[in-house]
Amino acid sequence: MAVSSARGMRDFLPRDKEHRDHVLGIIAATYHRHGFESIETPAVEESTTLHSGLGGDNEKLSFHIMKRGLTTEDMQGASSVEELSDLGLRFDLTVPLARFYASNHASLPPVFRSFHTGPVWRAERPQKGRYRQFVQADIDTLGEASSLAEVEILLATADVLKRLGVDGWRFRINDRRLLTEVLTAAGVQESEHPVAMIVIDKLDKIGAPAVLTELAERLSPGFSGDVLARMLEGSDVGFDAESIATLMGDTDTSRQVASELVEWVSKVSTLTDPGVVVFDPTLVRGMGYYTSSIFEISHPELGSSLGGGGRYDGMISRFLGQSVPAVGMSLGCERLLEVVPEVAVEHFEKVALAYDPEAPSSHLVAIKMHLVSTGHQVRLVPQSRNMRAVYERLAADGFQRVGDVGPDTQSAEAITWRDLE
Amino acid sequence: MAVSSARGMRDFLPRDKEHRDHVLGIIAATYHRHGFESIETPAVEESTTLHSGLGGDNEKLSFHIMKRGLTTEDMQGASSVEELSDLGLRFDLTVPLARFYASNHASLPPVFRSFHTGPVWRAERPQKGRYRQFVQADIDTLGEASSLAEVEILLATADVLKRLGVDGWRFRINDRRLLTEVLTAAGVQESEHPVAMIVIDKLDKIGAPAVLTELAERLSPGFSGDVLARMLEGSDVGFDAESIATLMGDTDTSRQVASELVEWVSKVSTLTDPGVVVFDPTLVRGMGYYTSSIFEISHPELGSSLGGGGRYDGMISRFLGQSVPAVGMSLGCERLLEVVPEVAVEHFEKVALAYDPEAPSSHLVAIKMHLVSTGHQVRLVPQSRNMRAVYERLAADGFQRVGDVGPDTQSAEAITWRDLE
Repeated sequence: MAVSSARGMRDFLPRDKEHRDHVLGIIAATYHRHGFESIETPAVEESTTLHSGLGGDNEKLSFHIMKRGLTTEDMQGASSVEELSDLGLRFDLTVPLARFYASNHASLPPVFRSFHTGPVWRAERPQKGRYRQFVQADIDTLGEASSLAEVEILLATADVLKRLGVDGWRFRINDRRLLTEVLTAAGVQESEHPVAMIVIDKLDKIGAPAVLTELAERLSPGFSGDVLARMLEGSDVGFDAESIATLMGDTDTSRQVASELVEWVSKVSTLTDPGVVVFDPTLVRGMGYYTSSIFEISHPELGSSLGGGGRYDGMISRFLGQSVPAVGMSLGCERLLEVVPEVAVEHFEKVALAYDPEAPSSHLVAIKMHLVSTGHQVRLVPQSRNMRAVYERLAADGFQRVGDVGPDTQSAEAITWRDLE
Repeated sequence: MAVSSARGMRDFLPRDKEHRDHVLGIIAATYHRHGFESIETPAVEESTTLHSGLGGDNEKLSFHIMKRGLTTEDMQGASSVEELSDLGLRFDLTVPLARFYASNHASLPPVFRSFHTGPVWRAERPQKGRYRQFVQADIDTLGEASSLAEVEILLATADVLKRLGVDGWRFRINDRRLLTEVLTAAGVQESEHPVAMIVIDKLDKIGAPAVLTELAERLSPGFSGDVLARMLEGSDVGFDAESIATLMGDTDTSRQVASELVEWVSKVSTLTDPGVVVFDPTLVRGMGYYTSSIFEISHPELGSSLGGGGRYDGMISRFLGQSVPAVGMSLGCERLLEVVPEVAVEHFEKVALAYDPEAPSSHLVAIKMHLVSTGHQVRLVPQSRNMRAVYERLAADGFQRVGDVGPDTQSAEAITWRDLE
């Protein structure tokens, strides 16, 4: 019989599980304080919802659930997976949120700040640090057209990272409209903007020279490599509107967008640490649905981001039929867990009762119940020849004290406690 | 486009979600204090694990996940669902726990007390109170052969129900060996015990006369209807060994089992309320893997149980190849949520800032950050013509105070607060 978990999916033992729950608890509590309210959507959505074209490449990684009651004839007559499948596991929380908002908007406030967390599933090739089931934690503000949405989301997220004790992270910020401006100014045809963005998005992995080479190969001739080269090298540009506008096309639109960007970002910088927000002219973010501001959280110890998001004003209308401004941030909890220092989580004093097998179990459980009711977490262990190994195990599991319960021990007061190292 | 959740699966809006999280939090914290440790297993398991014959009827309700990369030839050549599916969504937490223990037992203490919660999925016909995704919360003690396991599990569960404020519930207790004794004493052939138990299990739904009629129809002739009729009417038998043994076959074995049962149950009764544990001679519990003690939590307001479990000493060996004594209790969280009184969950004071659209947003977010950092949960709402509706919404969402932020409001100290009803 199989005795391992499914490929790319993990079990969590008590110690890891406690750390995960502690970190996820801080994320939830912090976002709540900032006014984001918890919602829950099912793990399973209809295939038509998942495959509505909003999931980008992730749609291809979806796990398909078979229709119930399929006959051999159904299977043998099928010419596509879609004919045999009507449901799927969600691959992100953004598509389910858009569907949730369309289903429930009548019961939600005009500006709805959502906190939405849970597992998502992607049929990726498993590798180190990449799993087929993993947890995301998303906040989204729906119905707020002004940059107040971006400011609240970044300030709340900065607070989460601070409360988790994460150091050295940065918000990298850009605006899709600036990317459009610089590509247009460089003479890239509009129809080729998407492919140009895909190539620029590889900068971190392959470096500027290789990006320029690939752009030359994949774009129609006639664009200015110099304009794009300056942008690719522009990661140290200061966060001032003039420098950004000049770098990103030097047009009226780029000046307008850069000015708005600097204005709202300054509100974030003022209320967090200076230098925590940086302009990144080459930040693209993969998903097609972003319309203006985009952001990512980078960390020096990680090759990939801790999270990211942006404004996606057009997406909700795909489900609701009416346009709703929307900004979101998604934290990748698995990567976050790698950089959050493990802290002792002790809600209760942890004590163990080492009992003589001859001790009446009625006394044993009465003593346990007394300790539980007076604020302890209690584990029972039988006495054995090798108590040293038992004590080591208890200490490793975070227990602070152990007391013997013998045949004559009648109450917790009669116990002599031994401290565990 | 589809704008509803998948059939039988639910969205939870903030108010319901808060109640769910609060109840699940109390369950987890209470079981932790009683020494049960949190683990997590993936939602998805291999089909060979799920369909190992331990899931009973629930196996038939499993959602099958399609293999990735199937071709048209694969589908057209398939003669069963199994050929196209390699994974499935778990339909309970017991089969995954047995698999988890087999995978990880080397890292676990000799007696392992597990707390395991999360959603499970069953492709049932949706109806009132029955969903296709629902949450279970299980505790299991693995490696403890003595009835200490049963006692700890029932005492911890009684504590959970008490802390949740649930009234009027009862533990109904039986032992599979007593059922075997009474069926044997009544002359029911051993090969017909399973079908007899299935019929007896319908007592709550169809009543004693109909059970006796169906037994007469489905069993071979020659058994004593009188012995079984007495058992079916015996729900008011006291919890003493003599009465139970007489009712359940009146054999040496029934006397031995009844005596053990009364002995451990008395430890539970002593430490909870008198009368909270009752003997139910007709309790069967559907699953085939139970070997001796079985229990169920009944509630007067509910037609079905709040949870149940029992001892299943033979199950782990199906995965591990070695026998491990095991006792478990599973709480059905959806039904529990129906009977838990809704309580206000206020970790932080909830305050709202009603802002003039002309107020500088830099001041607005600075005031918000100050309130968050001083222990408040803060929501921003724009001022509008109809503030009465805004205040009603805020009050309904549990906000206690609202303060105006105007164009000249520079700090939280300058705000005049209005109490919300």
